[in-house]
Amino acid sequence: MSNPIGVGLIGLGTVGSGVVELLQDAPSSMRRRKHVDFALKRVAVRDRARPRAVAVDKALLTAEAAEVVADPAVQLVVELTGAAPAYEWVSAALRQGKDVGTANKALLAERGEELFELALKNGADLMFEASVAGGIPIIRSLRSGLVANRVESLYGILNGTTNYILTRMSRGEGDYADILKDAQDEGYAEPDPTMDVSGMDAAQKLAILCRIGFHSTGTGSDVFCEGIEHIEQSDIEYARELGFVIKLLAIAKQQNGSVEARVHPAMVPTDSLLANIHDEFNAIQVQGSAVGPQVFSGRGAGQMPTASAVVADMVEMVERKVAGAGTAIGDMILGEEAVSIAPVENVEMRYFLRALVCDQPGVLERIARILAEEHISIASVIQKERDLEGGSVPLVIVTHEAKEAAMQRALGAIDALDAVPDGVKLIRMEEL
Amino acid sequence: MSNPIGVGLIGLGTVGSGVVELLQDAPSSMRRRKHVDFALKRVAVRDRARPRAVAVDKALLTAEAAEVVADPAVQLVVELTGAAPAYEWVSAALRQGKDVGTANKALLAERGEELFELALKNGADLMFEASVAGGIPIIRSLRSGLVANRVESLYGILNGTTNYILTRMSRGEGDYADILKDAQDEGYAEPDPTMDVSGMDAAQKLAILCRIGFHSTGTGSDVFCEGIEHIEQSDIEYARELGFVIKLLAIAKQQNGSVEARVHPAMVPTDSLLANIHDEFNAIQVQGSAVGPQVFSGRGAGQMPTASAVVADMVEMVERKVAGAGTAIGDMILGEEAVSIAPVENVEMRYFLRALVCDQPGVLERIARILAEEHISIASVIQKERDLEGGSVPLVIVTHEAKEAAMQRALGAIDALDAVPDGVKLIRMEEL
Repeated sequence: MSNPIGVGLIGLGTVGSGVVELLQDAPSSMRRRKHVDFALKRVAVRDRARPRAVAVDKALLTAEAAEVVADPAVQLVVELTGAAPAYEWVSAALRQGKDVGTANKALLAERGEELFELALKNGADLMFEASVAGGIPIIRSLRSGLVANRVESLYGILNGTTNYILTRMSRGEGDYADILKDAQDEGYAEPDPTMDVSGMDAAQKLAILCRIGFHSTGTGSDVFCEGIEHIEQSDIEYARELGFVIKLLAIAKQQNGSVEARVHPAMVPTDSLLANIHDEFNAIQVQGSAVGPQVFSGRGAGQMPTASAVVADMVEMVERKVAGAGTAIGDMILGEEAVSIAPVENVEMRYFLRALVCDQPGVLERIARILAEEHISIASVIQKERDLEGGSVPLVIVTHEAKEAAMQRALGAIDALDAVPDGVKLIRMEEL
Repeated sequence: MSNPIGVGLIGLGTVGSGVVELLQDAPSSMRRRKHVDFALKRVAVRDRARPRAVAVDKALLTAEAAEVVADPAVQLVVELTGAAPAYEWVSAALRQGKDVGTANKALLAERGEELFELALKNGADLMFEASVAGGIPIIRSLRSGLVANRVESLYGILNGTTNYILTRMSRGEGDYADILKDAQDEGYAEPDPTMDVSGMDAAQKLAILCRIGFHSTGTGSDVFCEGIEHIEQSDIEYARELGFVIKLLAIAKQQNGSVEARVHPAMVPTDSLLANIHDEFNAIQVQGSAVGPQVFSGRGAGQMPTASAVVADMVEMVERKVAGAGTAIGDMILGEEAVSIAPVENVEMRYFLRALVCDQPGVLERIARILAEEHISIASVIQKERDLEGGSVPLVIVTHEAKEAAMQRALGAIDALDAVPDGVKLIRMEEL
């Protein structure tokens, strides 16, 4: 492979422009140190006439991504559309033995297995640091820096939008709906925020991290997922009273022959590092068998952080190719050797339960009996003064460790009580 | 280079035993994924008869490190003594074209330049992730994950002993001398703690990070250095009142053609991530031109975290050798292309000043005039009630940004006042 390397770019939106900017303005040390140089050969865009923030020779532009992939001058394809047809483009490039860099988390989470196999078969590389946690070098740290470790657990704040919303709610700046609207106005949330607030975005990222950290197969939809839509200001206040902060956590833990993976709002101790990851920042806490706990934090999205990760992958792929070294994904464990993502029924944790209950004798006793029947032990109870607006009182229960399946059965039974008309709200607790 | 790789180990103390343990009990994934295998061929120890925590074939043991280096079966030398003669052993290995992994920060900080040049000349590699911040993959993150960034600044908590002492002081568990003694009893501090508490250990580590992050020459003694010995409980309490926590910070910043590098106690905002790095943990906050701020945190010392970093380096060196790829240190910028560490005189920051002053009219006015003459502007003053024990009152002044040289001149003038009999104490402030 020659140097400079011919690059084909699919997508010249925010991140694509950032990549072009970094390549044009590469820190001189990058060229001097890594002896790597890139030449942009072809760029696929939706609208060739649109003005661009970066200077790109108009002659390189095409509306057909397939042309970028097929161009013989293109040795390395960088896919930055996040679009659904990306699978076709990326697989076509790999089939031709061309290395691919991408920030496309949905592609990796949902069809990673096929793509890695295709890449390996064709001696091509496929790197995707930017698909999880933006510029934080978490994937290469798991692969390289922590290579002598078994990853025991992984806790991530992987979605900036929800962390921004929860941070502002924690500062008492409004309720969920108001702050979501602000976030949309400020560009921190999409017009349709479903993927973010439902936890699905974090679940896809967690599926990717599980593949690297735990050698699992499994897609985003195999990850248990609950969003932040039901979090209320009063949950945040109760959490504070108990010494906790509410975060949308992505959690994965080594199990015997499988991996536990879930995304849900969780109470974490106020003085933990993850509780202090504010606004749109991301963080990942990894427990390694040798190194113990490590935390990596930084911006999880945005033009230049994401572009920084894409370019780091490009440099590594070229270094490997120029040297005739193997692919970065030579370390992937695929197919039957990989483990699967286990259902959460048997996971044990502590729970925070909150309900408005009718102010009549015996309600607490009935709820306590339901929990006891499921062998769920109560750690503490907060019952406040009667609600001013009616005959109901807020009741909060914190449990000791209990199994998820038992808790779900108990919830069903409590929800069926006449004295708990609006049902019970549950937030999981993690000590970290 | 054949696989398995013949390893020669110099030093079978805590970290050396940890490395042997990791190699013996390598996560199966390491072998499967990285296709790398190691065979221990020779081990230098001070006392061959001493019982060892790990099982090592007695026939491999020698009292002569030079034998390890010279052994033709040894392809990779791992130096883990931290001893002064390490320079001879490491340079001899490099001269023979053998790759070297080491955790020896003094060696790297003080003689890194010579060793890198020697390694490059002989086509050998020299890796040292374990020399800074234990198992945290900070060096490879700077080299690889952040390759597309100019490092703008770097703030580190790089010494576990002092962070442990300051954390416990912050919890009100005793004064400096008491907690240092506890730390020595518990093994968190050396019998002679000078290197740690004086900041010199952190200064050496910072010199190494500056070499990677800023391409600087310069050793630990080029880094401005002040220790924690003079920190008192009352400093910590004043800091808290002001919304700060005191940490021993290692700070480096890009300057025009040079790098600013200093180690000293610093007040950092209570809600910053670095303020929440507790006990013996380390952390590094890096500001990259593209990624923005990133934080890496974990255990900065200890047997297995350090061994984890050593083994990660061993794997990378072997991967490169087996593939016929270049050395990891091919990216070093040495000699005249490197920048130097600048003196701190022109650095600007905010200062916290504290003194016991005689309770007489005009003292504050005289101090304020000295500061004004040096163009140092006062941000706030705290003057408490008269000290019960005598005629002096505690005075605290927080300044706006001022130049270090101006502040040093002002300190000299204030110390000369009769009304400030014990002189003035200074702690620098960093907003992060």
